[in-house]
Amino acid sequence: MMPPQMTDPLNAFIPHDEVLLPGAPEGALRGLRFAAKDIFDVAGHVTGCGNPDWLATHLPASATASAVERLLAAGADLIGKTITDELAYSLNGQNFHYGTPVNVNAPGRIPCGSSSGSASAVAGGAADFALGSDTGGSVRVPAAVCGIYGIRTSHGRVAIDGVMPLAASFDTVGWFARDPRLLARVGAVLMEEDTARLVGGAARLSDAFALAAPPVQAALEPLAARVEGLLGRRPAMQVGGLEDWMITFRKLQAREIWTQHGAWVEQVRPRFGPEIAARFEWARAVAGQPVGPEIQRRTAFGGLMAGMLREAGVLLLPTAPEIAPWRGLQGAAAQSFRDRTLSLTCIASLARLPQVNLPAEATVNGCPVGLSLIGPRGSDRALLGLAAQLAQLS
Amino acid sequence: MMPPQMTDPLNAFIPHDEVLLPGAPEGALRGLRFAAKDIFDVAGHVTGCGNPDWLATHLPASATASAVERLLAAGADLIGKTITDELAYSLNGQNFHYGTPVNVNAPGRIPCGSSSGSASAVAGGAADFALGSDTGGSVRVPAAVCGIYGIRTSHGRVAIDGVMPLAASFDTVGWFARDPRLLARVGAVLMEEDTARLVGGAARLSDAFALAAPPVQAALEPLAARVEGLLGRRPAMQVGGLEDWMITFRKLQAREIWTQHGAWVEQVRPRFGPEIAARFEWARAVAGQPVGPEIQRRTAFGGLMAGMLREAGVLLLPTAPEIAPWRGLQGAAAQSFRDRTLSLTCIASLARLPQVNLPAEATVNGCPVGLSLIGPRGSDRALLGLAAQLAQLS
Repeated sequence: MMPPQMTDPLNAFIPHDEVLLPGAPEGALRGLRFAAKDIFDVAGHVTGCGNPDWLATHLPASATASAVERLLAAGADLIGKTITDELAYSLNGQNFHYGTPVNVNAPGRIPCGSSSGSASAVAGGAADFALGSDTGGSVRVPAAVCGIYGIRTSHGRVAIDGVMPLAASFDTVGWFARDPRLLARVGAVLMEEDTARLVGGAARLSDAFALAAPPVQAALEPLAARVEGLLGRRPAMQVGGLEDWMITFRKLQAREIWTQHGAWVEQVRPRFGPEIAARFEWARAVAGQPVGPEIQRRTAFGGLMAGMLREAGVLLLPTAPEIAPWRGLQGAAAQSFRDRTLSLTCIASLARLPQVNLPAEATVNGCPVGLSLIGPRGSDRALLGLAAQLAQLS
Repeated sequence: MMPPQMTDPLNAFIPHDEVLLPGAPEGALRGLRFAAKDIFDVAGHVTGCGNPDWLATHLPASATASAVERLLAAGADLIGKTITDELAYSLNGQNFHYGTPVNVNAPGRIPCGSSSGSASAVAGGAADFALGSDTGGSVRVPAAVCGIYGIRTSHGRVAIDGVMPLAASFDTVGWFARDPRLLARVGAVLMEEDTARLVGGAARLSDAFALAAPPVQAALEPLAARVEGLLGRRPAMQVGGLEDWMITFRKLQAREIWTQHGAWVEQVRPRFGPEIAARFEWARAVAGQPVGPEIQRRTAFGGLMAGMLREAGVLLLPTAPEIAPWRGLQGAAAQSFRDRTLSLTCIASLARLPQVNLPAEATVNGCPVGLSLIGPRGSDRALLGLAAQLAQLS
């Protein structure tokens, strides 16, 4: 293959393998080019998961992930696999081994992650759409800070076979596109009919908005008003205790991650970047503690959110609290960005809900910001239809 | 809870936990009682996976498997979790720790597995239907030898979140029922519309029939003829090299199992029954060998089977080569039963195809035998409809 710098100025694609598969000659996505995060299996290729020791200790997949197969069967061409944060356990998109994909819409800033390469490739025009995965925000956050559309689907909605598990009770398939109609067309290939309807209006989550920086709140205002204009404005609501829910999420996620990957980490002792190494150390520690009330809390939270959605219809919130941080992000600033972001993203993750990021027209310091729609579990296609409809109204 | 022997004469349910959840007040499955193999998560309960050390080293699930949730939302009541072979890595249904569920239709004989308790509960009338999983035959084989209907779904078709992975590229959700119309009604809840159609007639796989004992072949003849009468008889076909395909399957499966569970096995050193212990030792050894041509062979096999299905329509084969073995099965007899059975079941497993077991009216030594229909990937609901139609014709 050609040296990556010749063909991949975005540094969006994995450097060690070229994965190209032509789509079927006919189909709803004929002629479109897509990329897949390098945690999706393609038969005959080792799925690298963002870590060279993972790559070295795993065999080629013998089957292709169903999501990839469906897109190929619909005529789309797979043009490559994209860089992911190591084992998808980060929101930053700074891969210690393979570098940081370029965020073309926020020069000098990170693309966020963990579906960093997929977001970068779509934002930069190297792909028409791209598959990612979202456990705690890994599609939603890069979509927001890269200024593109993205969906995290209802948990259990899109077949997740052939996708590396991170924390299986939270893991979902998602995807990015620049055009919301294409986002919806991909949804029509990957998902059958909705099992829940969007009924009602739109209500803002006021405590989620309060977590966003004031300029972000201001930039999202016209788009939020447009959604309310279309659906009807309902009184604002509060989730309440977002920081506690975030901690509940992080603990449950860490336990599942250690159950999934801890033994491999102990056995292989892979070389991780410092941030990821610290995160696995933390997961190990959490897994060693007695179980707290998190499991019961999660069940209660699902009921709370289902009730709010029945009352409101669609819930609105900022996708991320800030624009993309600078590429040198580390230390306390990284921790603060992560905590505030997870306080927003944990809502849909804990309650297994679909969430779509809409890029705002307004920017902050020239950088993208995104508004999110959350709908009931199983309303994914209606949410995608709504995103397309809103774009036409603008 | 009451002592198990008081409430569970079939020994179908796990003894260490009582998992009861009422279904929604309305729905397509209202009033029906179902059970779930103890590899399906239910929030707040530890999923035991058939091994006490697994039970002791895992936390309660924080989310319920989507498949279970869908059934509850359709009004069915979950009445318990059923015994599985350890980590689902067997076809026998003889759990070293929890005993062997009763096969009411073949007294003194094993129910086969690994979805042994689910098959036992349905055959014995303790549940109307039950969830299982099928990696290499774990729904199909117990359905056949217990004399009930069962489906292994197209790989990637039914959401598998919250289900313990065994060998993820082969793992599927399946279920059992005594009534084929109920089998289809459950399918209408768990699966959206088919993505492939059943077109053509029915062709027997002659080399698969040749693997079955002659009395089994004879007992299946009237049912096979009835299928051919309905769909139109096509010339018999041969897969060719079934024993080699079986070895390809076993090696790929063993590698995936060791990747999935090897580190846990090394770390915890769980107490396994002798057969399961030997199987994990073998998986460890296979995983340490250089990769052979299995990955390419699997891809080629998928193309081969897709071509045969295009030509034939539906393929017919014996689900298992023998009636249920006696409960004392072990050693060379167990190995022989396993090898011959896997030579039949590996077809749908390697090619990710749906397969439905139809119990024959005829028996062998008074014990059930089953005929299987294999259809194209994504034709699951049509296959279930066909099974229901055939039962009405009898």
